Amino acid sequence: MSIVVVGTVAFDTITTKYGTAEGVLGGAATYFSLAASYFCPVRIIAVVGEDFGAEHEAILKKRNIDTAGIQHAKGKTFFWSGEYGANVNEATTRITDLNVFQNFNPTVPAEYRDTEFLFLANAHPKLQAQVRHEMNGARLVGGDTMNYWISNAPQELAETLKLVDVLLINDTETKLLGKESNLPRAAQNVLAMGPKALVVKHGEYGATIFFREGAFGIGRHPFRAPALPIEEVRDPTGAGDSFAGGFMGFIAAQGELNREILKRAMFFGGVMGSFAVERFGTERLQNLTRADIDARFRLFRELTHLE
Amino acid sequence: MSIVVVGTVAFDTITTKYGTAEGVLGGAATYFSLAASYFCPVRIIAVVGEDFGAEHEAILKKRNIDTAGIQHAKGKTFFWSGEYGANVNEATTRITDLNVFQNFNPTVPAEYRDTEFLFLANAHPKLQAQVRHEMNGARLVGGDTMNYWISNAPQELAETLKLVDVLLINDTETKLLGKESNLPRAAQNVLAMGPKALVVKHGEYGATIFFREGAFGIGRHPFRAPALPIEEVRDPTGAGDSFAGGFMGFIAAQGELNREILKRAMFFGGVMGSFAVERFGTERLQNLTRADIDARFRLFRELTHLE
Repeated sequence: MSIVVVGTVAFDTITTKYGTAEGVLGGAATYFSLAASYFCPVRIIAVVGEDFGAEHEAILKKRNIDTAGIQHAKGKTFFWSGEYGANVNEATTRITDLNVFQNFNPTVPAEYRDTEFLFLANAHPKLQAQVRHEMNGARLVGGDTMNYWISNAPQELAETLKLVDVLLINDTETKLLGKESNLPRAAQNVLAMGPKALVVKHGEYGATIFFREGAFGIGRHPFRAPALPIEEVRDPTGAGDSFAGGFMGFIAAQGELNREILKRAMFFGGVMGSFAVERFGTERLQNLTRADIDARFRLFRELTHLE
Repeated sequence: MSIVVVGTVAFDTITTKYGTAEGVLGGAATYFSLAASYFCPVRIIAVVGEDFGAEHEAILKKRNIDTAGIQHAKGKTFFWSGEYGANVNEATTRITDLNVFQNFNPTVPAEYRDTEFLFLANAHPKLQAQVRHEMNGARLVGGDTMNYWISNAPQELAETLKLVDVLLINDTETKLLGKESNLPRAAQNVLAMGPKALVVKHGEYGATIFFREGAFGIGRHPFRAPALPIEEVRDPTGAGDSFAGGFMGFIAAQGELNREILKRAMFFGGVMGSFAVERFGTERLQNLTRADIDARFRLFRELTHLE
């Protein structure tokens, strides 16, 4: 089965202690699409500017990503520049130029509409809701958000959360959204806002999925998938979106939808996040094989499972 | 097989959002002993003051902990007072009175000397080395330290690290000691200083064990055991020492010593840490059963293992 993702396509200039990458293709929808493309067909909805050329589209096309939903607008593509210091979990943003994304009005191409899986990457909750409503038949909707919308668009976000089945955010966002400093209690508060499941991403420590009682199975027990300790984190940009791509892509590729599949998807999310950070930008995500992915899945399992 | 622990016995006054506990029995050696006592016989080396009465010793005795190594000195027992805010991972210290601990000169009772397992709880590395030398026949030595000794007694600590088989510290301490911001690289640097294995405690995210090549088995792969998301963290004091007690106690109770046992011990460390934080002070650790512990071990496994 296929998945539609709506979100940013961007050019990024990224500095880490390993060097600087200038104007590389990035954006949440790009990382998500590439990561998910190893599991299922992917269809992207985004907007780009005149600086987005055939060579950039080729990166997506090579992974068989359907780019019919990419709008080409006058002006420049979303641009982000940031730097990572000693704490690789947090970037210092130097520049954010929304450019053509500022007036982005996402529309779902007719041939996308019957797609069974949908991921709403981080964007204004109104945009997310708009796409969600255009794809009312979706079987499972994943979504992301960030502190900015939690603080500045709480009502619109509350509406969007009712339309999302699985929300994927980080610890800080969960505590802010759930208005509670204890993570599992914050998670319960978030689940009460709409989502059936909440994936809390812990960066280098992995991720935890919390389930609403009765959703995808029985019980309230969470499930925690640790991340791989990685010696060479060259560029953490896009790790969370790559996690989401691996997670949602794996789910979309299954026939069923139950807790055991969601748990396994947590590991594939971690696997794709771990690949993403090994190289600048999306480089590593462009040239994987399913064998690479399965080998790393086995490694994750070995590093966390008792005999 | 038995284990000897040397470290602090203290009285703590602890404030969390759940309330305040005044002058409760604490200290690294106390938490360690109680946690380890569910797995193997424990012998404690510590110093207490005149305010340490029979009712306090009874808490240890009830768990069959050998208190022959507790020295009774004139003056007051080590006292600590601290408060936890929204971030339960970090306490704000209000008072630290070393009291009788200031002149602590640990000696190993004759009947302790042939004990096969030893844990050097956080203390001046010179004290740790002194006890270690008196127990030269120990089969496995675990140890703890903290930022203060890493920064202020680096040479003495370097000597002590050569005498420790498994070091248990947290992320910040690992990065400081290993002089490296990337965790797995910092861990390799720490292992090069002496220990055969390094357990890095991640607080609410669990812990990772790194092995020196060839130590306890083959390969350089780490192993990561996640912690349980806990809704009611009443008092995080002693979680790390309780982890160490469960970890070392489980190991001491086994006939063999290999990586699979160390991995399983990581889970039992997490289990004991998770119990410790459920009540103020050592309350929860005083009244467990092995059945409680095994049930929580199964829960940890269920929450982290794929089918």
